[in-house]
Amino acid sequence: MPADAHGRSSNVDETPLYDLTVATLTHAERARTLVSALKTGTLCTLGTDPAGYPYGSFTTMAFDRGNPVFLLSALAEHTKNLMRDPRASLLVAESVAADPLANGRVTLLGKCTRLDANDGPSARDAYLALHPNANHYVDFTDFGFWKLGVESIRYIGGYGRMSWIPVDEWEAAEADPIAPLAARILKHMNDDHEQDMVVMCRGLTRATDTRSATMTSIDRLGFEMSAVTSYGPRPIRLGFDAPISTSADAREALVAMVHTARKRLALDS
Amino acid sequence: MPADAHGRSSNVDETPLYDLTVATLTHAERARTLVSALKTGTLCTLGTDPAGYPYGSFTTMAFDRGNPVFLLSALAEHTKNLMRDPRASLLVAESVAADPLANGRVTLLGKCTRLDANDGPSARDAYLALHPNANHYVDFTDFGFWKLGVESIRYIGGYGRMSWIPVDEWEAAEADPIAPLAARILKHMNDDHEQDMVVMCRGLTRATDTRSATMTSIDRLGFEMSAVTSYGPRPIRLGFDAPISTSADAREALVAMVHTARKRLALDS
Repeated sequence: MPADAHGRSSNVDETPLYDLTVATLTHAERARTLVSALKTGTLCTLGTDPAGYPYGSFTTMAFDRGNPVFLLSALAEHTKNLMRDPRASLLVAESVAADPLANGRVTLLGKCTRLDANDGPSARDAYLALHPNANHYVDFTDFGFWKLGVESIRYIGGYGRMSWIPVDEWEAAEADPIAPLAARILKHMNDDHEQDMVVMCRGLTRATDTRSATMTSIDRLGFEMSAVTSYGPRPIRLGFDAPISTSADAREALVAMVHTARKRLALDS
Repeated sequence: MPADAHGRSSNVDETPLYDLTVATLTHAERARTLVSALKTGTLCTLGTDPAGYPYGSFTTMAFDRGNPVFLLSALAEHTKNLMRDPRASLLVAESVAADPLANGRVTLLGKCTRLDANDGPSARDAYLALHPNANHYVDFTDFGFWKLGVESIRYIGGYGRMSWIPVDEWEAAEADPIAPLAARILKHMNDDHEQDMVVMCRGLTRATDTRSATMTSIDRLGFEMSAVTSYGPRPIRLGFDAPISTSADAREALVAMVHTARKRLALDS
C-alpha cells in the first residue's frame, strides 16, 4: 500500500467526481480578492542598522488600482528605510483557516515612493475610506502618502496552490464580487438547503451516492462543496452558466441547478 | 486653548493619579511576552527576482531561547533566498486591539541559517511542541530547521511605546508568567470585584473620586485599571509588593491591597 507525499494511503479511488474543466477564479483574481478584504500587512524594506538587512514592519494599507497605498510617519523606521532605498514588498495574509499554512497570502514587490500632489487624490481617498481614524493625523506635517508600484506578485493560496502572477494579469484582475457575500450565502445554504446540495451532487456530478453535503466556498463562477460519499468526504465544484455578481444572482443560479438536478434524478414527476 | 500633538484640548488637568515610579515590565520583557504567545509571523529575506528586493513571506515559527526557529521547505522562495543570503528579519505582531496600530509588534533581525545535527534538539523540540502537525512532514528530505540568530530587536508596543532593545536584555528577559492567565483574571475581577477596584483606586491612588473601575491588564509586577473619575476615565497602575507568578499569588496580592485600601478609607471599623 504505497503512500503519497502527504502520507495518505492510496487504496481509495481518488478520481475526481466532478468536471475539472469547470471555470475557476484565476490566481490573479484570487489574489486581488484576498488583498481587497484586508487592511493590514507587513511592509518589508531594506534596513539601515544593521545595514542591508530586510526589515519587516506592521502597517495599515489600502489599494489604489492594485497598488498598495500607505500613510507613513517620517519618524518611522520603514519610512527612513524607504527614503534611502525604495525597494520594498508588502505581505498580505488571510487568517481564516485554523491551520495557518492553509491560509492564502500575497507578496507584492516594487518600489515604494512618496506621492506628491500631482499623483491625484485616488490614493488618499482609497486610504481614508478604509481607515477613517487616520483623518485625525493625515494632515500632520510628518505624515505622507506612499505607494508601492507593483512589479512582481507572489501568490500562495494555501497548500499546493501558488504561482508568480504576471503584472498585466494582476492589473487587469478584479476582486471577486461574491467574496463579501460568501459567508452569508454559505450559512444560508448549509443551514437551510442541505438536501438541495445532496440533490445537486447526485444529479450533476459523479458523486451519485452523496449522503450529505456542505458548501465550502462560492465565487462569481461557481461554488464548492464537500460531499460525503461512501468513500468519505470528497470535493465537488460546480460552475454557473454565467458569472454572478449579487446574492439574487446566486439564488437564481442555484435554484436553476437544483431544478436541473431533480429532473435528471426524475425526482420531479 | 492649545492642543497637543494628538489634538486633545489641554484644559483638563492630566496630572497622573498614580505613582509613576511603580514597577513595570521592561520593553524586553514585553517583547518576549508578545512573541511567546504567537505561532506565526512574517519572514523577510532578500529576494532574487527582482534581485535585492526585500521579500516578505508568511511563516510559522517557535522560539528557542529568544531565537526564532523555522521548519522550511527547500522549494519555498524564502528558503532559496536564505541559501543565497542569510540576512533576514521576522515580524511578529499581535492582533488583539480593534485599532490595528494599537497592537504590539516586534521585529527581530539577524542571520537565518540552517541547523545541522550538532545544533542539538532544542530547536526541533521547541518547533514540534508548538506545531505538532509538522510531525507529518518534518522528516521529508526537502524540509529542514532554520534559526534566526537575533542581532537587533525593534519593539513597538502600540502608540508612543517603542525602542530598540539591546540584545543582552532580549536574551536575559523572560516572558511574563502572568500573561497566559491574564484574560481569566481580568474577567474575574471585572465580573465580580468591581467595588474592590473602586476601593483600591480611592484608597491607594489620587483618584479619590473614582466611581467605577475596570482592570485592563495584569502582569507579574502589578496591574492597570481604567478608573472613571469626575474628569472621565483615567489610567491607574498599582504595583505588587513582590512579583507574582500564579493565579493564587494574584489573588493573595489583590486581597491584601483591597484590605489596605479599606483600612485607609476607614471602611473597616
